[in-house]
Amino acid sequence: MAVYVFGHKNPDSDTVCGAIALADLQSKLGVEAVAVTQGKINPESAFILDKFGVAVPEVKTSFAGEKVMLVDHSDLAQSPDDLKEAELLGIVDHHKLGDVTTPNPLECWIWPVGCSCTVIKAMYDFYGVEIPKNIAGLMLCAILSDTVIFKSATCTDKDKKAAEELAKIAGESDLQALGMKMFEVKSAIKGTPMRELVERDYKDFDMNGNKVGIGQLELVDLALVADIKEDLAKDIQALKEEGNRHSVFLMLTDIMKEGTELLIASDDPSVVEKAFGAKPEGGKVWLDGVMSRKKQVVPNFEKAFA
Amino acid sequence: MAVYVFGHKNPDSDTVCGAIALADLQSKLGVEAVAVTQGKINPESAFILDKFGVAVPEVKTSFAGEKVMLVDHSDLAQSPDDLKEAELLGIVDHHKLGDVTTPNPLECWIWPVGCSCTVIKAMYDFYGVEIPKNIAGLMLCAILSDTVIFKSATCTDKDKKAAEELAKIAGESDLQALGMKMFEVKSAIKGTPMRELVERDYKDFDMNGNKVGIGQLELVDLALVADIKEDLAKDIQALKEEGNRHSVFLMLTDIMKEGTELLIASDDPSVVEKAFGAKPEGGKVWLDGVMSRKKQVVPNFEKAFA
Ligand SMILES: [Mn+2]
Ligand SMILES: [Mn+2]
Repeated sequence: MAVYVFGHKNPDSDTVCGAIALADLQSKLGVEAVAVTQGKINPESAFILDKFGVAVPEVKTSFAGEKVMLVDHSDLAQSPDDLKEAELLGIVDHHKLGDVTTPNPLECWIWPVGCSCTVIKAMYDFYGVEIPKNIAGLMLCAILSDTVIFKSATCTDKDKKAAEELAKIAGESDLQALGMKMFEVKSAIKGTPMRELVERDYKDFDMNGNKVGIGQLELVDLALVADIKEDLAKDIQALKEEGNRHSVFLMLTDIMKEGTELLIASDDPSVVEKAFGAKPEGGKVWLDGVMSRKKQVVPNFEKAFA
Repeated sequence: MAVYVFGHKNPDSDTVCGAIALADLQSKLGVEAVAVTQGKINPESAFILDKFGVAVPEVKTSFAGEKVMLVDHSDLAQSPDDLKEAELLGIVDHHKLGDVTTPNPLECWIWPVGCSCTVIKAMYDFYGVEIPKNIAGLMLCAILSDTVIFKSATCTDKDKKAAEELAKIAGESDLQALGMKMFEVKSAIKGTPMRELVERDYKDFDMNGNKVGIGQLELVDLALVADIKEDLAKDIQALKEEGNRHSVFLMLTDIMKEGTELLIASDDPSVVEKAFGAKPEGGKVWLDGVMSRKKQVVPNFEKAFA
């Protein structure tokens, strides 16, 4: 029986490429493994898979009775709804430790680095398994994506070193150009429905009993969304109400200016000032230097909600 | 500020030796680290530390405001009561994934092997750090203890390989004799109060909302406790009532016969038959081939309570 390897809901490129890489590594360690995703992949991931000639993984959302490995998360909220009915064999992640638990021992590789693929690179090295050229390309792109081309606060020396070594294997020499190309694809918004933009990289969190959603759009220029900012604001308000959420925040991150405009829909907007010390005006606020949801936004909100 | 490294409540030899080894490794990686324990060490651990000339770690039970790393557990019930007020930097473990969560990314090395020290051996190798002779002796003894000299159902090839390599570094050639010597120390019961025997290797679990305690005495011969079995039965009954527990079970494990006599104090003794298919008589039952609390007893009870 094959082991299913997959990342979080609303898959990003680390989740997609990480699942594919981990399934490849497991296969070479003698474990029959298949990478899948919990949902449709985003345009950036489609670009990466196409570039390196790797097939798009199938979508699968139910895993009762199956053996599984998780990538890029350890939160029940980001896992399949029937995870408890699956046998969890392992977790590879780089986030805070979530609320997934198991009845049996398992293999966890969880490191405080910028990208799951940095951890998977170390696993290939640890087990002495060669990384195929196309898989190295996928992993490299995941690192460029998660670390915003090494600019994110979550980026570590381990990520840079892993990316360098993967670039050599993949035969990629201009990482800046490759990263910018990816972010242009990611920034594509023309003709996209608002809800698809809001949910392109979106996660729900339980913050001290409050349901809080945080989405992020990483943009090469905030001007790209100037015309639709009001529509985005209306949509996160709608999303908040549909899901009985306390708040929905949308991070409009300018990767060149290295900061984030936060759009706010909240029962208590004062949590934003509590979290960041900056006063919102007109349902939004500029957060200079803030680029990482995981390392900068989530911890600050968790303190504000505590 | 030093990082405190420690294992679970009611420390066993893996918890004690693992904390000392991980603190040594961290120090060599440039992290100031101090091994401590959450309670008095058991006679087996005292024997090991004495044999290899390593000082007994201090007891420390409160960690608010401190940086910490956990060894040999990831359950809140086995952690310090104020763990949530500490900053958790890492976990090294070989059990099921427990309910510890963090607000920040951390480093987890959790493997499905027989002993935390097997994982720590791999960490030394991964980071290219040499293992000191006396630390290698401690880690070797932890593996012999946790795997019952390689006989436990939890023992893997990785444990055997790690033990072999550690034995070379420590200069130990007869692992069977070393293991038996340790279990003789562990089996020592003469003059020991009942409660101390029951709690020598004891853990509380939350099983579907029921508080369930499981203790284990690993003995070279069940005859060693023939005279005190009734007193032990009375004491687990008392322990059950004092703590409003649903059940307290005491595993009297015969490491030579490779099986366990289970003493039972329970609001509903039928869970034992549900868990093992064997009918208890007179508050006890023989479980042939059962030697591991973690791999055989806890999972079966969790299913029976589900
Ligand atoms: Mn990631
Ligand atoms: Mn252990």
